[in-house]
Amino acid sequence: MELNKEITDSAAQLGAILTNKGLTITTVESCTGGGVSYALTDTPGSSNYIDRCFVTYSNVAKQQLVGVSEQTLQQFGAVSEQAVREMVVGAQRAANAEVAVAISGIAGPSGGSAEKPVGTVWFAFAFKDNVQVEQCVFLGDRAKVRVQAIDFSLKALLQLVNS
Amino acid sequence: MELNKEITDSAAQLGAILTNKGLTITTVESCTGGGVSYALTDTPGSSNYIDRCFVTYSNVAKQQLVGVSEQTLQQFGAVSEQAVREMVVGAQRAANAEVAVAISGIAGPSGGSAEKPVGTVWFAFAFKDNVQVEQCVFLGDRAKVRVQAIDFSLKALLQLVNS
Repeated sequence: MELNKEITDSAAQLGAILTNKGLTITTVESCTGGGVSYALTDTPGSSNYIDRCFVTYSNVAKQQLVGVSEQTLQQFGAVSEQAVREMVVGAQRAANAEVAVAISGIAGPSGGSAEKPVGTVWFAFAFKDNVQVEQCVFLGDRAKVRVQAIDFSLKALLQLVNS
Repeated sequence: MELNKEITDSAAQLGAILTNKGLTITTVESCTGGGVSYALTDTPGSSNYIDRCFVTYSNVAKQQLVGVSEQTLQQFGAVSEQAVREMVVGAQRAANAEVAVAISGIAGPSGGSAEKPVGTVWFAFAFKDNVQVEQCVFLGDRAKVRVQAIDFSLKALLQLVNS
């Protein structure tokens, strides 16, 4: 369960910026299952900018822990722009953090559809009031989809806090 | 960020047992920062037995998310038998899960003391009303301490659900 160097380097760079700017971060993860928080806490001193993180695997957890609305989940599904937008804002609020990332996707091998194939991952990144969303369709097996999603998250967060 | 095979194998074995027995599991992690939930969700179909998991990095998060008492944290510290006992029972309740693990330790490189050296990790494992605690002092750097704690957790959970 070693973290690859690219991921730990991104986490460390992000941690240095958060520390310098006095910012805190949180995560709310579905398909990555805590991989981003695991990467972020690899960096010594990460307790300076992390208070808590959430793994919301079920729809009910997304509603109860970070306040995603039932209507959004019913209308658009958990793997959607609307869901990750609500997740990221809810996580920011629940953790009282300036920076947040929300991740919801279909890591496979099952669960894919024509509209949302396996590898589809929605991300939302928040820095104070600025919320950005991205959708990726990653190739590879379950493990590879998850690692790519973690790597992508950290790089996007780096860009966001540097902007 | 590949999971090592020993860890993914343990997670898959545990998942098969949970599925067969119709049990659900949750985690509340401090020093491992989501690594156990990341490992558990590596297994396809893990949404059958995982609803939510918690990363409670700060003392306040331990109080707010899984109901650890302020008195326990003040009297014994977050890295203590008492704290992980309260964490695991609180996580079971918050996630409505039969099986749970709580992990709190000092991954280093700083934060150690004569009484609680770097590498000290307290674990609590719950299976319904049965709660067991363990303390380990792992050798190695921060990454190695965390990986050993994840590995140890999964193996102890396997024993517990097989008992």
